[in-house]
Amino acid sequence: MTSFAVVDLLGLLAYGELSSFEQMAADAQNAPSLQDKADMSKFATGEFEHYERICARLVNLGADPLEAMEPFVNALDAYHAQLIPSNWLEGLVKSYIGEGIASDFYREVSKFLDKETAELVDEVLSDNGLADFAIERIRHASQNDSITAGRLALWGRRMMGEMIAQAGQVATARSALSELFIATEPATAVDDLSGLVNRLTVGHARRMDVLGFAS
Amino acid sequence: MTSFAVVDLLGLLAYGELSSFEQMAADAQNAPSLQDKADMSKFATGEFEHYERICARLVNLGADPLEAMEPFVNALDAYHAQLIPSNWLEGLVKSYIGEGIASDFYREVSKFLDKETAELVDEVLSDNGLADFAIERIRHASQNDSITAGRLALWGRRMMGEMIAQAGQVATARSALSELFIATEPATAVDDLSGLVNRLTVGHARRMDVLGFAS
Repeated sequence: MTSFAVVDLLGLLAYGELSSFEQMAADAQNAPSLQDKADMSKFATGEFEHYERICARLVNLGADPLEAMEPFVNALDAYHAQLIPSNWLEGLVKSYIGEGIASDFYREVSKFLDKETAELVDEVLSDNGLADFAIERIRHASQNDSITAGRLALWGRRMMGEMIAQAGQVATARSALSELFIATEPATAVDDLSGLVNRLTVGHARRMDVLGFAS
Repeated sequence: MTSFAVVDLLGLLAYGELSSFEQMAADAQNAPSLQDKADMSKFATGEFEHYERICARLVNLGADPLEAMEPFVNALDAYHAQLIPSNWLEGLVKSYIGEGIASDFYREVSKFLDKETAELVDEVLSDNGLADFAIERIRHASQNDSITAGRLALWGRRMMGEMIAQAGQVATARSALSELFIATEPATAVDDLSGLVNRLTVGHARRMDVLGFAS
């Protein structure tokens, strides 16, 4: 992979983490208890710490973090604007499902990254306890309440569609990133785009299942 | 001061920092540039770090942080609900003015705190660069725009009133805290409440002046 593509992937990830920080801090405002508020705020600051580590890596690679993030601001802002949680549970579903898809995607492409960058990506996308935190609360709220369960399932299904819509725009707009999907040299490209999307969809379905929802 | 009053002051401060974290993270969403967004997010995480340090001190004093914060949740939530910034500049004025008043208040009462607690309070209320960051942007936006300047000045004036309104409710509802203002033993109480309010008002007027606003 060219260093342009690496910088693009890190720029996208950095802005993703910064956006997640904002999303989780906003979710904390909807928390049903002071303990949940404190916990969600802690998860938010964890996202910001990841953002800082990715920026440091970008600087290390000779790139400007702001310039690296800039091309992805509109797509990620559009994604978040389409999916503003209207309550605590929707926020939890969004974080759990969104982090899951992002994590699956980056694990797919990390084989093209240099070792140090791949390790950093792996670390910042490792589960920090948010998954269990979210799963427990979502299942508890929906197990005896089919209306809540139905609404959250619908909400969770929308994530995948919105993410694919924005990803398509990003991939076509960024030539460096689209290298990833054009198999001029098979060893340096995702040579099976439909296979990738299928695998991401399977991961999404598995998480929906964990929440007790049909995907 | 009794340890109850110390725990109350720290509980109030802890929830204040947690609320500031949420406020600043929300402000970051209104930032006019990616650099401003990143900077404001960093200030927000600084508030959360302060929150964690105060919680650690509360635990150290044998108190439960959640219980210590609980009595102040309604008053601080009401304060923030009355003053939701509608744009980036209002957010900056709110943070600069609000942090200033809180800082002045805690410096007034810190003489009643044990040394270690007083040092912690001093540290978490020290300026971390937010003041200059806010002042520069507010002055720049309002220096050649009298409409913006007038609106922000009005907004800044509301802070003091809302804060006094909530402080009055807190002081009367919390017997431990109201000790501070009842001079049974002059050396352990703020023996001149109107003097305190006057000094806070002077500090507020000074900050309004720094922003270029008549208070």
